[in-house]
Amino acid sequence: MSIKAEAYCDAILPGYTHLQHAQPVLLGHHLMAWFWMLERDKGRLIDCQRRVDVLPLGSGALAGTTFPIDREFVANELKFSAVSDNSMDSVADRDFIAEFLSAASILMVHLSRFSEEIIIWNTSEFGFIALDDSVTTGSSIMPQKKNPDVAELVRGKSARVIGDLVSLLTLQKGLPLAYNRDLQEDKEPLFDAVDTVSMSLRAFTIMIETAEFNRERMHKAAGEAYSTATDLADYLVRKGVPFRTAHEQVGALVSYCVQNKKELTDLTADEIRQFAPDASDDAILQLSAEASVESRKAFGGTASSEVRRQIEKAKSLLER
Amino acid sequence: MSIKAEAYCDAILPGYTHLQHAQPVLLGHHLMAWFWMLERDKGRLIDCQRRVDVLPLGSGALAGTTFPIDREFVANELKFSAVSDNSMDSVADRDFIAEFLSAASILMVHLSRFSEEIIIWNTSEFGFIALDDSVTTGSSIMPQKKNPDVAELVRGKSARVIGDLVSLLTLQKGLPLAYNRDLQEDKEPLFDAVDTVSMSLRAFTIMIETAEFNRERMHKAAGEAYSTATDLADYLVRKGVPFRTAHEQVGALVSYCVQNKKELTDLTADEIRQFAPDASDDAILQLSAEASVESRKAFGGTASSEVRRQIEKAKSLLER
Amino acid sequence: MSIKAEAYCDAILPGYTHLQHAQPVLLGHHLMAWFWMLERDKGRLIDCQRRVDVLPLGSGALAGTTFPIDREFVANELKFSAVSDNSMDSVADRDFIAEFLSAASILMVHLSRFSEEIIIWNTSEFGFIALDDSVTTGSSIMPQKKNPDVAELVRGKSARVIGDLVSLLTLQKGLPLAYNRDLQEDKEPLFDAVDTVSMSLRAFTIMIETAEFNRERMHKAAGEAYSTATDLADYLVRKGVPFRTAHEQVGALVSYCVQNKKELTDLTADEIRQFAPDASDDAILQLSAEASVESRKAFGGTASSEVRRQIEKAKSLLER
Amino acid sequence: MSIKAEAYCDAILPGYTHLQHAQPVLLGHHLMAWFWMLERDKGRLIDCQRRVDVLPLGSGALAGTTFPIDREFVANELKFSAVSDNSMDSVADRDFIAEFLSAASILMVHLSRFSEEIIIWNTSEFGFIALDDSVTTGSSIMPQKKNPDVAELVRGKSARVIGDLVSLLTLQKGLPLAYNRDLQEDKEPLFDAVDTVSMSLRAFTIMIETAEFNRERMHKAAGEAYSTATDLADYLVRKGVPFRTAHEQVGALVSYCVQNKKELTDLTADEIRQFAPDASDDAILQLSAEASVESRKAFGGTASSEVRRQIEKAKSLLER
Repeated sequence: MSIKAEAYCDAILPGYTHLQHAQPVLLGHHLMAWFWMLERDKGRLIDCQRRVDVLPLGSGALAGTTFPIDREFVANELKFSAVSDNSMDSVADRDFIAEFLSAASILMVHLSRFSEEIIIWNTSEFGFIALDDSVTTGSSIMPQKKNPDVAELVRGKSARVIGDLVSLLTLQKGLPLAYNRDLQEDKEPLFDAVDTVSMSLRAFTIMIETAEFNRERMHKAAGEAYSTATDLADYLVRKGVPFRTAHEQVGALVSYCVQNKKELTDLTADEIRQFAPDASDDAILQLSAEASVESRKAFGGTASSEVRRQIEKAKSLLER
Repeated sequence: MSIKAEAYCDAILPGYTHLQHAQPVLLGHHLMAWFWMLERDKGRLIDCQRRVDVLPLGSGALAGTTFPIDREFVANELKFSAVSDNSMDSVADRDFIAEFLSAASILMVHLSRFSEEIIIWNTSEFGFIALDDSVTTGSSIMPQKKNPDVAELVRGKSARVIGDLVSLLTLQKGLPLAYNRDLQEDKEPLFDAVDTVSMSLRAFTIMIETAEFNRERMHKAAGEAYSTATDLADYLVRKGVPFRTAHEQVGALVSYCVQNKKELTDLTADEIRQFAPDASDDAILQLSAEASVESRKAFGGTASSEVRRQIEKAKSLLER
Repeated sequence: MSIKAEAYCDAILPGYTHLQHAQPVLLGHHLMAWFWMLERDKGRLIDCQRRVDVLPLGSGALAGTTFPIDREFVANELKFSAVSDNSMDSVADRDFIAEFLSAASILMVHLSRFSEEIIIWNTSEFGFIALDDSVTTGSSIMPQKKNPDVAELVRGKSARVIGDLVSLLTLQKGLPLAYNRDLQEDKEPLFDAVDTVSMSLRAFTIMIETAEFNRERMHKAAGEAYSTATDLADYLVRKGVPFRTAHEQVGALVSYCVQNKKELTDLTADEIRQFAPDASDDAILQLSAEASVESRKAFGGTASSEVRRQIEKAKSLLER
Repeated sequence: MSIKAEAYCDAILPGYTHLQHAQPVLLGHHLMAWFWMLERDKGRLIDCQRRVDVLPLGSGALAGTTFPIDREFVANELKFSAVSDNSMDSVADRDFIAEFLSAASILMVHLSRFSEEIIIWNTSEFGFIALDDSVTTGSSIMPQKKNPDVAELVRGKSARVIGDLVSLLTLQKGLPLAYNRDLQEDKEPLFDAVDTVSMSLRAFTIMIETAEFNRERMHKAAGEAYSTATDLADYLVRKGVPFRTAHEQVGALVSYCVQNKKELTDLTADEIRQFAPDASDDAILQLSAEASVESRKAFGGTASSEVRRQIEKAKSLLER
């Protein structure tokens, strides 16, 4: 993700809220948002592994063993970091599966969301992305189709892992100690989720690595639909206009543009001043997508310096 | 839990698998099994808190802010340990809720399981526990009832928290960046789960603190239903009998007892030898619940020394 | 179920609420409760089948076909009752799976509940039921065990089918028309649920058909734990005592019994009158389990005439 | 829905699979797909109501009542169609809630899918729909935004109802007869789902009734992205070309168009014949969106006569 983010560090596309153009962002910034989500997923899986890394062997049927077994030695031999403290807990508990399935579900939800974006970007209406043939298929009926199969399958498979989690939690609900045959049903959801997550991550990686983004389409879209309106409002605020007033003035200006089929970048400083009298001639400088992006220099913003900082941090995390 | 475990450190009850008598255990051991589950729950909540402890303020609508805000300073003032690295991630992601709801669901499943045991122990057939009036209610129709309300409600409320988790995961599935109005629905499952978990833990604590266990009923039950049969088989193995053979011999002996309506403790050494020729006179010493319990001295077993070790470890964990 | 109910039409056991003895009931009545639940499950599956019985063939990729196909004719040949009205609906919708999985989940929840009862009845503490060797297993470690495997597995498998349902609903959530590759994931939950339900019903039927109930243990239990206290209160109400007063008087009488380790059937009319002055000598007649059961003659009650009515109705429904 | 479908009976838009242009369809056809889904939802709710319409009163605590109550009379007075056959079933079962929540979940999934389409159609990239101010909001930060709030909220609320269903099913799993306090938790998911579904349907109706579709944008899109390629392939098949060959020829033709930045409607008959030698001059007639739509005259297809048939059928169903 960070490699792709670096490659598209300077490509501008619309940032969306409610799937409406909100403010322009760098594609590098957008991709790094996914990096941080996956980084937290990794943290959850590491925490899970730490709690799982406990030897249950030697718990017997439930009460411990009468044979003189050195469980510490066994743990060492089998590369476990610790030995379970209570034999009944070891026999009864399946929270190591529940915790893994929780982390896996959150991870798959992240992938489902990124998949949704790829599917939307891949429409002919958006046209932001070109997917490699290895992750798309044609249609058996329609010769012109290039379907984003991997993205759709991964989105779908998030539902499968959520189903696995529900199954495992519901399975355990209300079971007394220690072992009950119900628990035999713990394996399939676990194995299914491990397979699904592994396969999804592998396929997803190939899809991202091979994807080509259409810089022109993205840049053109970023300049449309008034996505720098906030920048003009912020500019007015810096000129001393109260935020509420600035918001109203810019709102009226946008309505004017809609009626006259103009984009914000088509406006002259005089046209702007008809709605926002405090605007100077430099107001029009606020309205380019580039200016908008570069003005967001606060920590975590989409300015290119901030995106580069994120990428450097990501690289050092990955090198660890 | 550890205090109650200490108070009943020496009380013997049947350990169950499949809700069938398996091997006798100390009540202290049984209660400590729940301690370790709750200890892991605590670990998961601490890990979650660490990941949540990141300031999102200053992310703006999605692209960061154009105002010169020192986010580190704000984080310090508001006692956050870190500042979010990416404004779109901050606006879009809800995995801090999903992770909390996962940890909460696993915790509630644990409480649902312990509740199930309390409900079963509270039947007139088992009669192992007497619950305080503060956690039971009488019946509006039936004057003789003393219903284990808190245990039943907590068991039921585990379903509620699982529902909250499913709702939050499904909510996010397939949503593109950054904010979408769907996410307004994130608050109710979170607040509902926080309230439910808090209330359940409080009520559960009162229920356990005030519960009285019936040592006589538990001890009598532990001596019934052949729950020391494994001990006799283990004894034979130590005498050099292969495990499979020992298992068969003891199985036949149990059948003999069932037909003759005897408990294992009613047997003479000669009767035992009819089925297990390698048994010496000391075989009958294996058949008491006390001997069974004390023989399980391996780390994590139910022997009283091991239970006391667990309690000491628990105390030092709680004092931290 | 109705056959087994008939065989045990006159066997008395405690009816439980909160797993506490509430009022005696006939085992036939108890078993028939499960019959009616399964009967509604059948109704849901029939309704589902009716809605599924619609031919989708001829919908093409999504817009219908350009070839002159007579879909009515195809439907007739393939034994479908109807032809789908809208090609996009046919391609996109999976509610025929969702409806089946819903009905299957409710059915499995019913079986999980009955399984829970069988597991509890099969404990040595309750001892109400003896399960056939074909539906139990011994333990690999403990020679004395007879574990209610089928009941536990079916209880566990209810979680699996609920997981399938969640998976299928979450899968479809937020998908636009018409086909999306996500829908490829619709098959496994469906096929898995069909297999699970079929297997569970088959195993469950064998378990019930071969089960032996212990009339003596059940009858003895029905006379214990004051489960006819309500009958005495109802008797007092018929004598003109306000219900609240009757409830209090009987409550005090039960406390007296608890303190003096007596069952209600041990009481004399004079002892009863110490707490309930309006009781005549015939009050003690109210206190037998048989009298309690037979007094509940209103439609749907546990009186033997009502249980026989239910069984006859069930038979005629099954013969249809 | 059928009224809106009638108003846009002749408006053409692209039909999508995988969110890729597949084949042109009439908006009336597309909207009617949703009608049939909602019609099945209605059927499920009616079936549920039929099964719920059974009087439980007179079941007492669980065993029936000892008072001479005429339950048929009560049912008549309270407008119930039937009386429950078994008092324990009446006290224990909650499948009337589970069935409602299942039907409600499927309904909400339908609405979530239609919402997704509206959100996508409402993007500036698609621009197919203009939503009324009453169902959108502006942004507190961004003056240019018109967010499809109702569609997003309804999509989100589908997750809530699925959560309610999971909660209710998990709640009941493994509960013995008859009443257990857990069941107190049955009310909130039911009431919450009733409120959510009612509100969602009301808001959704207003959103659809007030929506304006942009015929020009939809029509223009329908002619792009080669969505009549299948029609050309079908035409070749009717000329005697095997389907596989026709598919390959049209696939090559589409590639030619992509490379030369042409739409299919830009082609001459001679250009077509370079790839598909069997094409006559009338081949170009196949390539308009109108011809494509009208050629799908089989029952359930998107031809205008078929859409009108659907609308008439829908009207007569609604008038019942």
